[in-house]
Amino acid sequence: MTYWLRCTDCGREYREGEVEYLCTACAGTGAAGTAPRGVLRIEYGKVTGAVPDESYSDSRRWHVLLPLRSPESMPPLPVGPTPLHRAERLGKELGLARLVVKDDTVLPTGSLKDRASSVVVAKARELGRDTITTASTGNAAVALAAMAASVGLRAVILVPKTAPIAKRTQMLVFGATVVPVEGTYDDAYALSLEATRVFGWYNRSTAYNPLTVDGKKTVAFEIWEQLGRKAPDAVLVPTGDGVILAGVHKGFGDLRDAGLVDRLPRLYAAQAEGSAAIVRSLDVEGEEVPGLARATTIADSISVGVPAAGRWAKRALRETGGGGIVVTDGEIVEAIALLGRTSGIFCEPAAAAAIAGARKAAREGLVGRDETVVVLVTGNGLKDVAAAERAVRMPEAIVPTVEALGEALGGELKPPMDTDGHR
Amino acid sequence: MTYWLRCTDCGREYREGEVEYLCTACAGTGAAGTAPRGVLRIEYGKVTGAVPDESYSDSRRWHVLLPLRSPESMPPLPVGPTPLHRAERLGKELGLARLVVKDDTVLPTGSLKDRASSVVVAKARELGRDTITTASTGNAAVALAAMAASVGLRAVILVPKTAPIAKRTQMLVFGATVVPVEGTYDDAYALSLEATRVFGWYNRSTAYNPLTVDGKKTVAFEIWEQLGRKAPDAVLVPTGDGVILAGVHKGFGDLRDAGLVDRLPRLYAAQAEGSAAIVRSLDVEGEEVPGLARATTIADSISVGVPAAGRWAKRALRETGGGGIVVTDGEIVEAIALLGRTSGIFCEPAAAAAIAGARKAAREGLVGRDETVVVLVTGNGLKDVAAAERAVRMPEAIVPTVEALGEALGGELKPPMDTDGHR
Repeated sequence: MTYWLRCTDCGREYREGEVEYLCTACAGTGAAGTAPRGVLRIEYGKVTGAVPDESYSDSRRWHVLLPLRSPESMPPLPVGPTPLHRAERLGKELGLARLVVKDDTVLPTGSLKDRASSVVVAKARELGRDTITTASTGNAAVALAAMAASVGLRAVILVPKTAPIAKRTQMLVFGATVVPVEGTYDDAYALSLEATRVFGWYNRSTAYNPLTVDGKKTVAFEIWEQLGRKAPDAVLVPTGDGVILAGVHKGFGDLRDAGLVDRLPRLYAAQAEGSAAIVRSLDVEGEEVPGLARATTIADSISVGVPAAGRWAKRALRETGGGGIVVTDGEIVEAIALLGRTSGIFCEPAAAAAIAGARKAAREGLVGRDETVVVLVTGNGLKDVAAAERAVRMPEAIVPTVEALGEALGGELKPPMDTDGHR
Repeated sequence: MTYWLRCTDCGREYREGEVEYLCTACAGTGAAGTAPRGVLRIEYGKVTGAVPDESYSDSRRWHVLLPLRSPESMPPLPVGPTPLHRAERLGKELGLARLVVKDDTVLPTGSLKDRASSVVVAKARELGRDTITTASTGNAAVALAAMAASVGLRAVILVPKTAPIAKRTQMLVFGATVVPVEGTYDDAYALSLEATRVFGWYNRSTAYNPLTVDGKKTVAFEIWEQLGRKAPDAVLVPTGDGVILAGVHKGFGDLRDAGLVDRLPRLYAAQAEGSAAIVRSLDVEGEEVPGLARATTIADSISVGVPAAGRWAKRALRETGGGGIVVTDGEIVEAIALLGRTSGIFCEPAAAAAIAGARKAAREGLVGRDETVVVLVTGNGLKDVAAAERAVRMPEAIVPTVEALGEALGGELKPPMDTDGHR
């Protein structure tokens, strides 16, 4: 659909194609160490055409609200719809009668990032760009590598050389050009921007490329459709750099602009205690989001010092009447097992932060017992089995007899006696 | 749907409920160390009702051909339809113009085993059984644990204490009762049968419970529907114990019995060199499938000495005019990267065996260039990242400058010179 861009900080507007990444007027003007200014919002104006277009079953059904010339530009790996589960047993444990879990663990590479990468790769095809780059250590780069592989484009991933071997391996399996960099993530990020300029590549770095927010928003569209074309009362979003939160906000915002919902759900950012820049900033007046010198949490996907979409996220929490929830690493680990045993879904630590956040939100009365509350489960637990090991206890081995088995199960089961009273 | 059971070896028939697992007449009568006799086939007779029932989008749409009283018995984790990809770029490399990939990596727990576990758990609910047991070290037990968790039933998993920690962890996250057993898989299997009898549990062990084959067959139904209600010319199945192969055979067989296809596709078993009991048995006259003293392959999900559904699988290969393909562990590892870079799909080694098998089948002329050939991609690569590490080469780290980056990319990229001729 045709669109224009508007700066979320200074309001300056740009025609499609006039600028590719941040606002040229205000990017770089913020205080050092705070969330950057100049993230652009994609605007569609009055929507003409059916939302959704039911001739497609996957995310192409939202093409009227996507910044692409044609839905056919999207890669063949289908993105969504992912299941929306009425989580009755989990809800019972949390005291929420209408708890709903949005399960993005079953997306092509196992994380919500596939939504953004699919749209960015589609755009690269429309622009005739053959190489897409990003700095990343995780899910976003894996998603980019897979989507690029599926259409034969080149992905150049710049990672700090200390990035986890599992994620680097996955990118390499997808044939991406993975370049380990001596230095930090910030060094890799700076290099990706310079390489973009010098080599003419297309850049997918999150929030920097405004299409990343617009790709992630399809999760909101699906929730709306799966709830019977209604917005929920509240959505809990695992939050690091704020881009998923911005995406959910944008999705419901687009639906409101199109006259399809009359209010936005309250949005809640669930952040890990050691990486809570956005939630902490709610105590700071104005729109500034001070960064952290160092973020630490077991939930690597939301471990972020200076959040790229922090300012947008902060505004979204305030504007919708939601707020922030901080959880500990211990609560995150517990929540992996809680979701697993009540629903059969295995999530990574970042997603578990939102489950732990739901428990806290219910206890503190942020959400009401009978409200429709959606928790975003953003990533697959298979991406971080080591974290899950901390959530469970491996029992002792037994000798292979039914007697030993009965005993191992707490003695509540005994082999029946035979007619002579023997076991 | 109502059904009866027929022994695939002696032909003896049973009413629904008359027998739960193997044929009572011929189980245990085969030669020691060979694939067991007595696996039962579920029979529906004349089909009345629409196939598929389009009021459901997931595997419940096949309820007319499933051994359940109600589609509503199935757990809420939706099983399929999984994507069927026209794998053009992979096909080009393999010399197959109509190669199609069936991607079961995106099922709820990341493997085709979810299809069987969903149906078995549904049956347990209909029978009022509250505990389901299985002996397993892998995907089947994980799938059972998840499906049981999603409906609040208890899963008791008996694993050799040497089973990989990652899979044991995943089962524990789903709240399964995991009992490590001193001994081999065979010891755990024997204990699961005894515990089933003594404690009245329901047993999901593969092939032993005839519903496992009937659950897996939905993959064939989906392929048929996604190809425009046509059978393909050939299907390549990664094969260990033969149960997936039997499932595919049963699926197309059911469609033929219902008058929806007029011939079965040729079925090919792709087996690893060190675990090829079924393929080797094709040189043995009659229906016997001699087991191996010891199976060894990197593809753990198809590492099987004595295949539980070996006799059914052997008959299916012969009856359909297909056959066997043996691949090396080296070819399996290569195929992980081949599928990844051409399609953006990350598969586990067992699934890669079928990709490697497709390459071999094309080279040897088992399948024709213009035939519609389906490869089953049965499991997610995130289940075995260590195997994937063997498929890729990690490049050296660079200092973070565009010059170093250009050099790392083979020198084909140079930063443009400025107007004074400097870089």
